[in-house]
Amino acid sequence: MSAPTAPGPAVVDLLGLVAYGELLAFDRMAADARLAPDLKRRAALSEMAAVEIGNYRRLADRLGALGVPPDDAMAPYVAPLQAYHDSTEPRDWLEAVTKAYVGDAITDDFLREIAGALDEPDRQLVLDVLHESRYAEFAAAEMRAAITADPPVANRLSMWARRLVGEALSQAGRVAAADRGGLTALIAQGERADAQTLFRRLTAAHTARMAAAGLNN
Amino acid sequence: MSAPTAPGPAVVDLLGLVAYGELLAFDRMAADARLAPDLKRRAALSEMAAVEIGNYRRLADRLGALGVPPDDAMAPYVAPLQAYHDSTEPRDWLEAVTKAYVGDAITDDFLREIAGALDEPDRQLVLDVLHESRYAEFAAAEMRAAITADPPVANRLSMWARRLVGEALSQAGRVAAADRGGLTALIAQGERADAQTLFRRLTAAHTARMAAAGLNN
Repeated sequence: MSAPTAPGPAVVDLLGLVAYGELLAFDRMAADARLAPDLKRRAALSEMAAVEIGNYRRLADRLGALGVPPDDAMAPYVAPLQAYHDSTEPRDWLEAVTKAYVGDAITDDFLREIAGALDEPDRQLVLDVLHESRYAEFAAAEMRAAITADPPVANRLSMWARRLVGEALSQAGRVAAADRGGLTALIAQGERADAQTLFRRLTAAHTARMAAAGLNN
Repeated sequence: MSAPTAPGPAVVDLLGLVAYGELLAFDRMAADARLAPDLKRRAALSEMAAVEIGNYRRLADRLGALGVPPDDAMAPYVAPLQAYHDSTEPRDWLEAVTKAYVGDAITDDFLREIAGALDEPDRQLVLDVLHESRYAEFAAAEMRAAITADPPVANRLSMWARRLVGEALSQAGRVAAADRGGLTALIAQGERADAQTLFRRLTAAHTARMAAAGLNN
């Protein structure tokens, strides 16, 4: 029997990326809560934001246990992820929930694929902190209700969603450029090493989600 | 033995005020986290913000148990509290922590005085959700470190703190004007019915806190 291998830098890179993603998701949902049309939805979004911080804490604790200060592990991802958010600032409540619906889901799908290559306990940790479906359902319900009330809204939100996907892809390129080698190694390690297959699967899931929320792709 | 009296509108008014205060505190800390000079402090502030939402949930659940939708109970306080925050938007990290240090403490002292007039379990609930000293210690440490590094900072922050107190007092006037009678009744019910004594006690505590953080009153 061989001793368990200590988690390598690839794990630290992924945990750092996911941890910073949680901080940003918190930040974005808290800002979006201000756009909510009423106190009830504002409170609901604020509560969902707080969940992200609980996830952040779990990831930061794990990084600490691995001997890495969380801010060191997160540092490479600050600039590329911030650039994504700066370039996709929602102008109103519907753009905000659409961004959460489209962006979080693609990110989660991507991370779920990469996490498959991790050993435990890190694999389960990453899967645990992926966004709950609660927010996706909330966001889709908001979008469907708005489209029912005013059908042309579907066109505006569909265009917005396409722009988000375009920015997300270019964000993925920036994250890859910021990568210190660990993430690329993880992707190559996974069974789904074929980037084209991965891309096709992510796109198919995205198309299905668009339809579920009443948007056209 | 008389049956316990059902909580009256005064309790609902106070719980609504405190609940909205929690939502706003969350919102403000989340926004302040963006001003943090590094990821470590940004994460620390985001985690403190999330605590406020846990408090909000407890208050909203209690309002629900009393048969009042939380947003109805909060509604009267939205305009006056928002006006306070709009008029005291921090321009940098030090102004943000000073605002939290000065403003939260005065608010907490005031609510602690009013809560004394409540019956259980509401009395304990309000006392429980008052801000932890953790944030006050964090804020005071930030202020002292900045003053040590650059002594003239003390003057700028002292002026800012005085402005905050002035705005807080005029906010208190706005809250009183928005009051549906419940809060005023609670204040009158308390043992500390004398508004002047209450004011003197709040001021003395504020002066002591200013000194503790290295500011002059």
